[in-house]
Amino acid sequence: MRALLYDTGLKLVDDYPQPSPAPGEALIRVTLAGICNTDLEITRGYLGFRGVLGQEFVGSVERCEDAAWIGRRVVGEINCDCGVCPACLAGRPSHCSERTTLGISGRNGALADYCALPLRNLHRVPDTLSDEQAVFAEPLAAALEILEQIHLRPTDRTVVLGDGKLGLLVAQVLRLTGCELLTLGHHQDKLAILERQGIATCLASESPWAEADVVVDCTGNPEGFAAAHELVRPRGTLVLKSTFQGQSEVNLTALVVDEVGLVGSRCGPFAPALRLLSQRLVDVESLITAIFPLGQALEAVDTERQKGSLKVLIRPGEGRA
Amino acid sequence: MRALLYDTGLKLVDDYPQPSPAPGEALIRVTLAGICNTDLEITRGYLGFRGVLGQEFVGSVERCEDAAWIGRRVVGEINCDCGVCPACLAGRPSHCSERTTLGISGRNGALADYCALPLRNLHRVPDTLSDEQAVFAEPLAAALEILEQIHLRPTDRTVVLGDGKLGLLVAQVLRLTGCELLTLGHHQDKLAILERQGIATCLASESPWAEADVVVDCTGNPEGFAAAHELVRPRGTLVLKSTFQGQSEVNLTALVVDEVGLVGSRCGPFAPALRLLSQRLVDVESLITAIFPLGQALEAVDTERQKGSLKVLIRPGEGRA
Repeated sequence: MRALLYDTGLKLVDDYPQPSPAPGEALIRVTLAGICNTDLEITRGYLGFRGVLGQEFVGSVERCEDAAWIGRRVVGEINCDCGVCPACLAGRPSHCSERTTLGISGRNGALADYCALPLRNLHRVPDTLSDEQAVFAEPLAAALEILEQIHLRPTDRTVVLGDGKLGLLVAQVLRLTGCELLTLGHHQDKLAILERQGIATCLASESPWAEADVVVDCTGNPEGFAAAHELVRPRGTLVLKSTFQGQSEVNLTALVVDEVGLVGSRCGPFAPALRLLSQRLVDVESLITAIFPLGQALEAVDTERQKGSLKVLIRPGEGRA
Repeated sequence: MRALLYDTGLKLVDDYPQPSPAPGEALIRVTLAGICNTDLEITRGYLGFRGVLGQEFVGSVERCEDAAWIGRRVVGEINCDCGVCPACLAGRPSHCSERTTLGISGRNGALADYCALPLRNLHRVPDTLSDEQAVFAEPLAAALEILEQIHLRPTDRTVVLGDGKLGLLVAQVLRLTGCELLTLGHHQDKLAILERQGIATCLASESPWAEADVVVDCTGNPEGFAAAHELVRPRGTLVLKSTFQGQSEVNLTALVVDEVGLVGSRCGPFAPALRLLSQRLVDVESLITAIFPLGQALEAVDTERQKGSLKVLIRPGEGRA
């Protein structure tokens, strides 16, 4: 099959072996996949992953043990847990110590003709959703994870830092709480997507707020932390969504003196993400910069890397091996 | 009056002007005061404070507008708030943006014959408590602040990192929750104080636990954070109690991937500290390394700086000017 592979470099191959699903797993024919920031970070050495990239997809189940799933249009949670380690038994499967993760660790990803995931990771896509909407289930779930972790009050003054793909999804999810929300970014055209929905935005350099109760760092870069820390009030909450290669310089003592609460936040729940999409409470289609065929995956990655880009999608479509 | 002063260096002076209490403040005759880690950090440049050191004291009210307080034996909260800034009005006076702090910022401390604090900062010391017990109200309140901030469950596996003064107080407070507690340190003799109370301890290099639900960093040094981070489980809570000069290298991405919650923790509530002391639920007297007269304050600081030391106290007593 064709696959976007990262090993000694980034390459598109057309003779990659099709996944062999383990017992309990499904072989999924990918119909649409998204390129995310983690894919780009991996090509910069993040996590040392070698294999097929891609965490975000919509596909149809082609082969599995349970006939009820065959032909179903699905999205899938990316963390594959063992079910028996202490973290799994304690109800934290996404932190399973033995986990593999689609396109990140120990498991090939979805930027290919096919991928494989356990059936228990799959969620059926409602017929009312297009592939272009459903492909956002994974990053939207990651945005919802914030509300799994912290209690955001309708009266909280909240800042989303960063107007990339994740920042725009996080802002749309947090505004549903009714909180006093401001999104800060560097790109007038990206912020305009939120403005069209009535969500307040501002260029980061012109923020009217000196401090906020809750600040969510979605910048995706090491500088985001210091900016977020600067904005969060004493005893406020700083949510970290950015992952990147390397260490950061942090003033830990300032966190102690100001009694700031800091929460790392990663993957989230798919079911509410699909509900919000179905109820048209989040606009994801405005985030699509371009859709490429799989044969042009390298061009797609180049497009995703460009500053002005939001979500670049890849449609395996024709030419499947 | 005599005072332990830090300006161009650390010195004991005997002609320092007695504090002039502002309206609403009390002049307090110090009967016993403690040297804490913050005092030592200030002498290394922390916070740039210049003035009389000392946050921990017991004293008697000598002068104030409310006759009911005169002659009362008191301890005092160190943060003096303005009462009108947004933080004060939001019920977070210890984070008042205009605050002065006894012996730390904008207000001379208690390692002197006299100090001054607002009456609303004072707490009467029950007759059943000795000065040597009551002088621990401030650091014990700081230990209790952890339980103001996080919900420590009786089933939580909890590690206190550090067997200094604060670590020993934190361990004694946390064990009252019934949690599964282990204190890690580098000093067999200090850990023995906890062992005598039936609190499990271990040399840090020999920890039997690979991970814990909650880890409290009381090491007081920059290396503590990395050790605490290493120990906390995914989605666990890392409480930071250490303050020190300078920045730290932190792997922020690991906090995100493991969804660790990090909580900075500083000053705490005095009333429960006095209750625990009165009910003999915390042993503080075992933490006293030595008591010096104020005339030997420099020797007292030298003693406090020694590795094996715990709490060094200073009793102004005779010779008061």
